[in-house]
Amino acid sequence: MKKVAIVMGSKSDLNIVEKGINVLKEFGVPFEVHVLSAHRCPEEVKNFACTAKESGFSVLIAAAGMAAHLAGAIAANTTLPVIGIPCRSSGSDGLDALYSTVQMPPGIPVATVAIDGAKNAAYLAMQILALSDEELAEKLKAARAKEREKLLATDQEVFHQYQ
Amino acid sequence: MKKVAIVMGSKSDLNIVEKGINVLKEFGVPFEVHVLSAHRCPEEVKNFACTAKESGFSVLIAAAGMAAHLAGAIAANTTLPVIGIPCRSSGSDGLDALYSTVQMPPGIPVATVAIDGAKNAAYLAMQILALSDEELAEKLKAARAKEREKLLATDQEVFHQYQ
Amino acid sequence: MKKVAIVMGSKSDLNIVEKGINVLKEFGVPFEVHVLSAHRCPEEVKNFACTAKESGFSVLIAAAGMAAHLAGAIAANTTLPVIGIPCRSSGSDGLDALYSTVQMPPGIPVATVAIDGAKNAAYLAMQILALSDEELAEKLKAARAKEREKLLATDQEVFHQYQ
Amino acid sequence: MKKVAIVMGSKSDLNIVEKGINVLKEFGVPFEVHVLSAHRCPEEVKNFACTAKESGFSVLIAAAGMAAHLAGAIAANTTLPVIGIPCRSSGSDGLDALYSTVQMPPGIPVATVAIDGAKNAAYLAMQILALSDEELAEKLKAARAKEREKLLATDQEVFHQYQ
Amino acid sequence: MKKVAIVMGSKSDLNIVEKGINVLKEFGVPFEVHVLSAHRCPEEVKNFACTAKESGFSVLIAAAGMAAHLAGAIAANTTLPVIGIPCRSSGSDGLDALYSTVQMPPGIPVATVAIDGAKNAAYLAMQILALSDEELAEKLKAARAKEREKLLATDQEVFHQYQ
Amino acid sequence: MKKVAIVMGSKSDLNIVEKGINVLKEFGVPFEVHVLSAHRCPEEVKNFACTAKESGFSVLIAAAGMAAHLAGAIAANTTLPVIGIPCRSSGSDGLDALYSTVQMPPGIPVATVAIDGAKNAAYLAMQILALSDEELAEKLKAARAKEREKLLATDQEVFHQYQ
Amino acid sequence: MKKVAIVMGSKSDLNIVEKGINVLKEFGVPFEVHVLSAHRCPEEVKNFACTAKESGFSVLIAAAGMAAHLAGAIAANTTLPVIGIPCRSSGSDGLDALYSTVQMPPGIPVATVAIDGAKNAAYLAMQILALSDEELAEKLKAARAKEREKLLATDQEVFHQYQ
Amino acid sequence: MKKVAIVMGSKSDLNIVEKGINVLKEFGVPFEVHVLSAHRCPEEVKNFACTAKESGFSVLIAAAGMAAHLAGAIAANTTLPVIGIPCRSSGSDGLDALYSTVQMPPGIPVATVAIDGAKNAAYLAMQILALSDEELAEKLKAARAKEREKLLATDQEVFHQYQ
Repeated sequence: MKKVAIVMGSKSDLNIVEKGINVLKEFGVPFEVHVLSAHRCPEEVKNFACTAKESGFSVLIAAAGMAAHLAGAIAANTTLPVIGIPCRSSGSDGLDALYSTVQMPPGIPVATVAIDGAKNAAYLAMQILALSDEELAEKLKAARAKEREKLLATDQEVFHQYQ
Repeated sequence: MKKVAIVMGSKSDLNIVEKGINVLKEFGVPFEVHVLSAHRCPEEVKNFACTAKESGFSVLIAAAGMAAHLAGAIAANTTLPVIGIPCRSSGSDGLDALYSTVQMPPGIPVATVAIDGAKNAAYLAMQILALSDEELAEKLKAARAKEREKLLATDQEVFHQYQ
Repeated sequence: MKKVAIVMGSKSDLNIVEKGINVLKEFGVPFEVHVLSAHRCPEEVKNFACTAKESGFSVLIAAAGMAAHLAGAIAANTTLPVIGIPCRSSGSDGLDALYSTVQMPPGIPVATVAIDGAKNAAYLAMQILALSDEELAEKLKAARAKEREKLLATDQEVFHQYQ
Repeated sequence: MKKVAIVMGSKSDLNIVEKGINVLKEFGVPFEVHVLSAHRCPEEVKNFACTAKESGFSVLIAAAGMAAHLAGAIAANTTLPVIGIPCRSSGSDGLDALYSTVQMPPGIPVATVAIDGAKNAAYLAMQILALSDEELAEKLKAARAKEREKLLATDQEVFHQYQ
Repeated sequence: MKKVAIVMGSKSDLNIVEKGINVLKEFGVPFEVHVLSAHRCPEEVKNFACTAKESGFSVLIAAAGMAAHLAGAIAANTTLPVIGIPCRSSGSDGLDALYSTVQMPPGIPVATVAIDGAKNAAYLAMQILALSDEELAEKLKAARAKEREKLLATDQEVFHQYQ
Repeated sequence: MKKVAIVMGSKSDLNIVEKGINVLKEFGVPFEVHVLSAHRCPEEVKNFACTAKESGFSVLIAAAGMAAHLAGAIAANTTLPVIGIPCRSSGSDGLDALYSTVQMPPGIPVATVAIDGAKNAAYLAMQILALSDEELAEKLKAARAKEREKLLATDQEVFHQYQ
Repeated sequence: MKKVAIVMGSKSDLNIVEKGINVLKEFGVPFEVHVLSAHRCPEEVKNFACTAKESGFSVLIAAAGMAAHLAGAIAANTTLPVIGIPCRSSGSDGLDALYSTVQMPPGIPVATVAIDGAKNAAYLAMQILALSDEELAEKLKAARAKEREKLLATDQEVFHQYQ
Repeated sequence: MKKVAIVMGSKSDLNIVEKGINVLKEFGVPFEVHVLSAHRCPEEVKNFACTAKESGFSVLIAAAGMAAHLAGAIAANTTLPVIGIPCRSSGSDGLDALYSTVQMPPGIPVATVAIDGAKNAAYLAMQILALSDEELAEKLKAARAKEREKLLATDQEVFHQYQ
């Protein structure tokens, strides 16, 4: 299976991004993690994006806060699907990062997930990979079923708590 | 090639969505267009989503405005990748639709593009399909190169206009 | 008397919703509490909504955060009045949930109360029930009078504190 | 059947409110329309609210823009259910009216619908009345079914347009 | 000298309002403090406003949060100048209260100060009173001069700290 | 009677400010109109503010858009009450001007009215003047009564239109 | 004198940017205009930025809308001062572009001017150049003086219009 | 080398501003620090701005919160480049200060950096100074290279952590 890349703009985003990494681990999807900044090492970001396909990556996840250009800078240099995680930062509620990530111009999309939505970035990446990996598709369906069971058990528990 | 579905919550979204349809046409990607509402025909939305895979769909695009639940309602019933287009509506600047589309809970991602970003929804769908379709991947790269050429021609034109 | 249903999208909303539950208890209004998610168990949400009337429910309260689809998903499947509580979540100020709950399309209303306004959801439910329950109507008026007395006592206390 | 009251803060809101009036007419629900301002005739608003029940009203709808106090001012003087329509005004996108209508303090709820959502105010009023009026309940269900049929016809039309 | 009234919508606003009370005390301006709610005791608010002038009040200060109607409800019942303090509440950043306080309709102004700006409400009240009280006017000028001196001393201190 | 000053930051604000000027004319309150910019002629703004009292002004109204500093710049140089009108500008919804006008630091209040609220600036100025001008106070009460009559006539007209 | 560069992300921004170009022309400051997109020709943007200094540029102005990365992408590749103009686009009020332009990470500043503030971008560029060009500094002071005269003439005109 | 001035509106901003001061120290750029308020000592702010050039200053940095007029008040009185730092204050997310700082009228620019972006204000000041100071230009390039090295080391560390 091709690898998923998870790139974050600063190591301080790792505590958010980790939730997505754990999801990929849990599903056995191969991945690489990088800390690269669209502003502090633009050349490396470009090289990473330009060579991503030949390096064996399929889907690229980018997490950044504030004027969050990382996902867009990667998307500008590859036609692989790029998933953007807008991150809250100290004192910002994340609307700045959301706008900077999602409002991309025609032709260069970034598939944006919720503010701090690292888990969903991982699930979205896997749903994309599952288009050509039936085993992964089954795992995803099973995981949904399990989540549903867990929720229905919680429902019963809370329902009885208030009977 | 598997089909892309484009679903909109109301026929009034068609003038926006059309820009994405035209992109798919231009690239020769097979697609189907539907008008289905998460609130006015929830059963049909669910059936559409549940059977999308066996109906030959790969990527699902959903466009809706205001409390834009359509993409989320589809995403809740399939593990195919779902792309959401938050639409402006008369008098709303689209932040309501953006929040309603992108802020999905863990496990059920919606790949959100820009407000009224129908073109990018189409490009994102094709970038996903291109992961297993080298010909489409080449077309996408060619299209980017062409866009770049066009822009550089404009650059020269404007540059000389102000010399 | 018919029952009120209180449904929340996640057990983490319980600490907010509980304030509304306590109001219903205090007034002796029968109710049921559920944890059901529009995205993680859409089928159960639909079944709950479709059978709510025959199950003896009159008013349905739904609490959810972020892209808060729960109230809308219930409203789409019943013509019973549905009250929506937009909930804050970790790091979100609740505007996302407010927009996702209140901006419903024509024909499918959600009666939205304040962000985290679980108490008012309960009072609104009772004001609706009181239309055909004069005893409850009297209790509500009495409660208002009591609140007013309490406030006027506070007024006197603070007034004298600053004399 | 008891009457629905529709009160607006200024005659300039009539073009919005009219869409709700037409819905009530269409369903044959008796109603009265008033122009009363929480700020320009507070005494009349209070009297209206205080006597609403004995005047034969069941549900009260209030539409106002900007610092939209009308619904709250009515709600403060009655325990009948009050539905608030936050209205856009020249140059305001309606967030001011939405906040002023929905963010009510505990004990005094306003059932808020979408910005300029007069139709939904009417539907919500009828869903409340239908709790004790099975004929109206059937009409509402029939209307929903009709809307669904209309949408599915549109779906077929658009689907074939793009085949 | 006529009295200033300070009314708050809930005793929980007292810790904010107190900063304004202390300013009035410091300048020896007579005042009264009240806790009255536009929604929980509308009649008392109205009576307070209607009789404010004959009760010896000149300027009325109203502090409230969320759908902050208190200042507007008072302003609707008097032509005395009314100053509004929009208050933050748990979890709200105060934009709701700011909009609800400042966006008053033509003819019924509320003189709005900053979010949680109780001190400035007091200063504004005194600047109004000072129009017909030269002694107070001199005190206000002296206070400004003193503030300026204090700031310039801080300036010198910080300037030397970084020399 | 002392004069009211109306200062605007740019002549382009005159069409908004004029609505306030007309109110003052209608009530026979003496006034002067100026176009002065906190940024383009700061010295004149300061001089105007510093000499306003001795020039016979009582209340100062300042209208400005965008980073609306005018009201604050005047307030910083006088202890006369300063009323701020935050103005919309081409493309801005006025929140920038509202924040720039209302969020003043402790000690230097600006009495802020609604976005584009020139009429209310005039009414607020007159309510302040009326504290020491019983005739004006009576006129203001009469104007309110007239507005109320007009509204109640509209109420009757609309009420009968829908009977 | 070294040249100023004005780069815009799309030719559609030219009608805004032109206002800044005209200012530079008026002051006789040499400049070049380019249309380059951070997303559609990232390589050219990088090359432009990397060689800007040796190409004889001093200050770089970048105008872009939506997820406005252009100024940041240039700033990441040069230590020349970069001025960013956040542009409104069809349907967006420009807050997306403002956040995307101004919220840059530590070490890579963008000197941001007002939304659509092309004139001020030109003035800021010239104020920077004027640090080492006394003649330009004098011109800027003269221009300010002229603006002030014009404003004071307008003041007199409006003042007399309302006498 | 000419000096940089760092002015803050209140000593409470010092903990933010200090991060910028430390950057200037680190690069050996001469500077002065002041605490001056556009509202509490407008005359001193004006004098500071008017004499800044002859006092040996080149670039002026102003930090302020809420209705942040300081940068604009300085910019109105000098043609030296003025950099504005919009500061968060207790309870405000800084959008008020951002709007008040960046939305300046034509002719009087403020070079605005990120909310609380004191470091970038210092870097921007130095990038401006470096236009006529090749040694500083080299230092800035070296600092960028060092930051890049640090980031790439972090990248390697995190990359290996997840291998």
